Amino acid sequence: MQKSITKIALAGSGNIAWHLANALKLQGYQITRIWSRNFSNARALAESYDSKACNYISDLRENADLIILAVADKAIKEVASAIGEFDGIVVHTAGSVSINALKDSFQNYGVFYPLQTFSKGTPVNIREVPFFLESSSDDVNQALKQLALSLSAKVYEADSHQRMLLHVAAVFAGNYSNFMYTISHEVLNGSGLPQDVLHPLILETARKATSGDPMKMQTGPARRNDTTTIEKHLEILASLPEYAELYRLLANLISNKYK
Amino acid sequence: MQKSITKIALAGSGNIAWHLANALKLQGYQITRIWSRNFSNARALAESYDSKACNYISDLRENADLIILAVADKAIKEVASAIGEFDGIVVHTAGSVSINALKDSFQNYGVFYPLQTFSKGTPVNIREVPFFLESSSDDVNQALKQLALSLSAKVYEADSHQRMLLHVAAVFAGNYSNFMYTISHEVLNGSGLPQDVLHPLILETARKATSGDPMKMQTGPARRNDTTTIEKHLEILASLPEYAELYRLLANLISNKYK
Repeated sequence: MQKSITKIALAGSGNIAWHLANALKLQGYQITRIWSRNFSNARALAESYDSKACNYISDLRENADLIILAVADKAIKEVASAIGEFDGIVVHTAGSVSINALKDSFQNYGVFYPLQTFSKGTPVNIREVPFFLESSSDDVNQALKQLALSLSAKVYEADSHQRMLLHVAAVFAGNYSNFMYTISHEVLNGSGLPQDVLHPLILETARKATSGDPMKMQTGPARRNDTTTIEKHLEILASLPEYAELYRLLANLISNKYK
Repeated sequence: MQKSITKIALAGSGNIAWHLANALKLQGYQITRIWSRNFSNARALAESYDSKACNYISDLRENADLIILAVADKAIKEVASAIGEFDGIVVHTAGSVSINALKDSFQNYGVFYPLQTFSKGTPVNIREVPFFLESSSDDVNQALKQLALSLSAKVYEADSHQRMLLHVAAVFAGNYSNFMYTISHEVLNGSGLPQDVLHPLILETARKATSGDPMKMQTGPARRNDTTTIEKHLEILASLPEYAELYRLLANLISNKYK
């Protein structure tokens, strides 16, 4: 039977590592060691959370019940194999990496995936962040679930395929919606109008989409198949040809969907 | 000198007409007549706001200080020319139609453009909705400004070119971000996970973008130029080829932007 997790070591010093360290420390977990490819980043993070930076990946094992790999997706396997033999649990935090990336290196392993956009220094209400767990055994599952529930009210189990679908969905809902905002700012830049005139629209669109089915909330020229307005907009975008191509593709996708 | 506006007639019964009628009535304006291509829609709207539906566009003039054309963009010129001689002010509410669409029909005219996503039956806090005004004269400008300020705290002047840029920006910030949410729902549909797991991400992304520069908030595989994850996601999207094409275009645009 897996004992509860109280001592946690962390590999990585990026956005997810930063937010997890913060949330874990607030909940009273001891962050035993922090390792990062860039030692001074690990030291900075360790100083903030009463922890110790370490030089060797294998040092993460010392005193830890759990090692969290919050490193770049492509580094997960390499960092995992550098840990060495370890009795506790090892998890990664990646949406699009299979649990099997850890299978050859450990007995007890899993995935601990928080679905949110994290930026260092921007506080996040961790209790609202959904966590998705996958585990190598029921014992590991029980230990990870207890840990996740101490951080968040929203804990789910998801296998590697479900988590991949979730990550693709999150790219559209988060990364790509943010890029729409970026384009809107660039377009408005030429107008002399302040950027914040778009804020009520951005917030209301997000609010509506989270209170019902976004497909039913669609408005705008493409939804109405208003080709005259679409052509006017493409003329305006002639000076930003890469966005004109994107505008046209999106207008066509939307028009076809509501035909 | 233009007198203040107290009596307002409305052409149209769509989303904007519905929300303007509601906001104007709440502020104590009298809605004298409502006309719509579909008479029963006009009657339904008129019944809700102590007004009268009319059969002829020209009847909108009766007793009105202002006629608001909240009709489809392509109908504006035709409806305007059917009004006939009118001493008051006539405005349209369209982002991408020039003020000149009204020039041949009236002495006093303008544009009264509210920037928000409106759906019938979904309440909107009108005081937070930015209004953009354009006027045929200083007198008209003064009257429209007084009206707009009685509805909203955010009133701007914008000429037809500025308003067009604004509308293009709004298509990206509102319509197209909503379409990103729609795609994310479709992708997640196949996973068996509940749709609301995406809501914190959607809301937090919007919140961050409205508290700083969205370009600096960009995260995700394309931002990191993580081609391994991008290729995995394109495999997952093989069953939704139209979204795979869009995913790839957006990934390329983002990768190039942050190179």
